[in-house]
Amino acid sequence: MESPTATFLLRSIGTVHSPYTSTREIPKGLGAEHREEGTIEIDPQYEAGLQDIEGFSHLYVLWVFDRAGELPQTWIGTPPADDRPHGVFATRSPRRPNPLALTVVELLRREGRVLHVRGIDMLDRTPVLDLKPYLSSIREEKLRRGWLAEAEAREKPRAETRES
Amino acid sequence: MESPTATFLLRSIGTVHSPYTSTREIPKGLGAEHREEGTIEIDPQYEAGLQDIEGFSHLYVLWVFDRAGELPQTWIGTPPADDRPHGVFATRSPRRPNPLALTVVELLRREGRVLHVRGIDMLDRTPVLDLKPYLSSIREEKLRRGWLAEAEAREKPRAETRES
Repeated sequence: MESPTATFLLRSIGTVHSPYTSTREIPKGLGAEHREEGTIEIDPQYEAGLQDIEGFSHLYVLWVFDRAGELPQTWIGTPPADDRPHGVFATRSPRRPNPLALTVVELLRREGRVLHVRGIDMLDRTPVLDLKPYLSSIREEKLRRGWLAEAEAREKPRAETRES
Repeated sequence: MESPTATFLLRSIGTVHSPYTSTREIPKGLGAEHREEGTIEIDPQYEAGLQDIEGFSHLYVLWVFDRAGELPQTWIGTPPADDRPHGVFATRSPRRPNPLALTVVELLRREGRVLHVRGIDMLDRTPVLDLKPYLSSIREEKLRRGWLAEAEAREKPRAETRES
């Protein structure tokens, strides 16, 4: 029943233009908000694929962690939002078996093959693999957020102590 | 400013076990609901990456349309939810520049390296590239759903006519 590992060759369809040139500049960890604006420039040969995209308020952007650094040996890491280690599939860590990233952005407007978006957390010149319309949400009251909720709960009293 | 096309070699990290063996069996189009259960079996070398994933109620599954058929020449297609053509980036069509798919599933339970999930829309034996925790939603009242909302609005009076 085991399938041998299959490999897939993917290609960039466009590029992110972002104010971030170093990963240090990108907000991370608990309460990090991504409100930064930037553009996604789709390569000319794929421009037709954007038809009617401007009707959607939010898009999924699938992109590549092309500057992620060394991979862990164990697939376990400590994310910026916690001081405890978790499996990479339970985090958004860039150091994962495939360097695939996923961001939901708000589409502000389209100018030809350039999409102006809000909410980017990519470095400048990041390669993009795909765009998809964001169609529906899981209702917040149905979500369980595992270690992240626990880390937030531990952080909250500390933050309140700091403020007081 | 143009970057040359970059390519990326990705590998499967696991396999979907699904009741669907033909794309014809998978609900598609307006009002399609994916409530089907199945499993995602992660390859043994990546099992450590699953640590703490069971705390999350929902996961993003990034997977490969490995049986998508011929690519369109134009990157424009008519999705099952509409009778009008749209750009592939404004649809979830399998026939897109990179055969990347994204599904949100509900995680029912984990047994070792096997995740039991609800909401699959993949064929049996589909290769999986990545799993990520689903952390937050865009509030429904903030979403605009473009051509899909228009197709639903056109469909609704027709459905009512059929029922009456």
